[in-house]
Amino acid sequence: MSTSILEQEINEQPLAIQRLLDNETEHVRRLAASLRGRFDYVLIAARGTSDNAARYAQYAFGVYNRLPVALATPSLFTLYDRPPLLNGALVVGISQSGQSPDIGAVISEARRQGRPTLAITNDPASPLAQAAEEVIPLHAGPERAIAATKTYTTSLTTLALLSAALAADEQRYAQLRQLPDLMRQTLTGLAPLMARAERYRYMGHCVVIGRGYNFATAFEIALKIKELTRAVAEPYSSADFRHGPIAMVGRGFPTLVVAPTDTVADDLRSLVSDLKDLGAELLVISEDEVLLSQAQLPLPLPPHIPAWLTPLVAVLPGQCFSLALAQAKGLNPDQPVGLKKVTETL
Amino acid sequence: MSTSILEQEINEQPLAIQRLLDNETEHVRRLAASLRGRFDYVLIAARGTSDNAARYAQYAFGVYNRLPVALATPSLFTLYDRPPLLNGALVVGISQSGQSPDIGAVISEARRQGRPTLAITNDPASPLAQAAEEVIPLHAGPERAIAATKTYTTSLTTLALLSAALAADEQRYAQLRQLPDLMRQTLTGLAPLMARAERYRYMGHCVVIGRGYNFATAFEIALKIKELTRAVAEPYSSADFRHGPIAMVGRGFPTLVVAPTDTVADDLRSLVSDLKDLGAELLVISEDEVLLSQAQLPLPLPPHIPAWLTPLVAVLPGQCFSLALAQAKGLNPDQPVGLKKVTETL
Repeated sequence: MSTSILEQEINEQPLAIQRLLDNETEHVRRLAASLRGRFDYVLIAARGTSDNAARYAQYAFGVYNRLPVALATPSLFTLYDRPPLLNGALVVGISQSGQSPDIGAVISEARRQGRPTLAITNDPASPLAQAAEEVIPLHAGPERAIAATKTYTTSLTTLALLSAALAADEQRYAQLRQLPDLMRQTLTGLAPLMARAERYRYMGHCVVIGRGYNFATAFEIALKIKELTRAVAEPYSSADFRHGPIAMVGRGFPTLVVAPTDTVADDLRSLVSDLKDLGAELLVISEDEVLLSQAQLPLPLPPHIPAWLTPLVAVLPGQCFSLALAQAKGLNPDQPVGLKKVTETL
Repeated sequence: MSTSILEQEINEQPLAIQRLLDNETEHVRRLAASLRGRFDYVLIAARGTSDNAARYAQYAFGVYNRLPVALATPSLFTLYDRPPLLNGALVVGISQSGQSPDIGAVISEARRQGRPTLAITNDPASPLAQAAEEVIPLHAGPERAIAATKTYTTSLTTLALLSAALAADEQRYAQLRQLPDLMRQTLTGLAPLMARAERYRYMGHCVVIGRGYNFATAFEIALKIKELTRAVAEPYSSADFRHGPIAMVGRGFPTLVVAPTDTVADDLRSLVSDLKDLGAELLVISEDEVLLSQAQLPLPLPPHIPAWLTPLVAVLPGQCFSLALAQAKGLNPDQPVGLKKVTETL
């Protein structure tokens, strides 16, 4: 089997992150200095994969910058034509293509209201980039597979850089520089496991559970599974999962739990134990041997990942699993049925 | 078959809404007057069904009050112990029981920071109600079925009342008073359709799609389907659905589209047409004859519902469908496996 474009792009991620850090660290530092004190909260407009990056910002900016992060509801700016008043907001648009009119509309309106605006995009010449006062380019290089991988991890890294810069925290820059190596180790460790995706050849649906920083990871892995394998995959926080959806779980119900070492790990450990009692089929992404030993499919991470950066690393097993499952199902991972690379929505 | 508690509670909703309006309209009017000008945005903490009510507030407060609404990430306040700084926020906690510690923690912290706080709960003696500066009781009466119905619609109505009161808009009070009748008409119209839920006896998964005001409805109906029928049901906005998940849709793929007449209806009409081309199985909630005629299972609404109140009415067919499907599957709708009425999460 020839290597798919998707597989190449998954493996390019450590290099793409390196390029982003090399090119943007100083720029983001200056940008953060110019933004400091000008806003009380962050409003992020994004769709699909980029919306999952925004979910990461809710925790990174929350824990390290004590900033509330709201996800925009673009239809208020477009279909309803009733944009909210954005007093106090820093408004950020995230889009790999920078083409979707709804995300651009949020940024344009924020600028009209005199708020600080920032575009995070892989195309610095795009309409989104032109609409915003400031732009951080992703430096991911052209992304040719329909399913986003390197534009997701570079978006997360950009948000992590911005969080470190707003906090002016030198220790966190040093942690960011470890990322490419941690990602490489993870990808190498996964290769021999991937044949085991065959076990899920006839899986019709599954849930993906994460919490805190890795709530975003659960959403992004679920999206990759849906895009690439046509299986239904539903993301949850462990807390929301207990408020209702856990009712679905019976013997053999497949649940992928994203549980790297973090403050929220105890909560996930207790959920894994409950899922085990219910007879669920467990796929676990973690560096914890005990947690991994509970899983039918353990997906191990390297040790010593700083908690706030675990989403950059923990998403990789999910990307590889989705690719391997698409191949086991005979689907083309580069061209999922029914999708286009640039989706323009209002 | 004896009538289930769930069915009784579904049918009690028009009366519960009437009671809420009778008891709280004046109180909420005074409350709104005292809050006006004290905040730039609204932060809502909620889980499960109450989180879906919060999604409604994003549109109602956006369109009518031009207020941005953020959904809180409670783990920042609990597990991470790094609460964001809430300058500019009105902080609202929604919980039928008022017992979940994480929602209470958000309100307590907001109060510590000197922000205005409001609890919306069915138990005015609960810890949540005690933590908040102001309380609006739901007046739903005891809810004995595990799956929430009347506490959901009374929570929505409370948020609608608050929106009308903040805008001091008399026309909208008049529209609110039509609600109990519109809900009664809907429930009567649905009764003969419910035998048709048998068609979905062996449905393993489905998606539920709404947009704008009824984004909340899509989430709430998906939650009812999961809780009551153990089928996997995934909610989407029509825009997000096009950014990836539409790849799952093939011949016979069940999609429930919530499409009452509203500014966003054109967007949903175009999606329904695309889904039809993909061979999807369509369930449609609408008052539009043309849209209903495209569906294998049309779920009709009465005409002339004010757009901002459609979520109160459009959720009813979803509740009834979930109940009928649970019965067709031989499940007990009052006691779904694996769920408790009060879920305490951190």
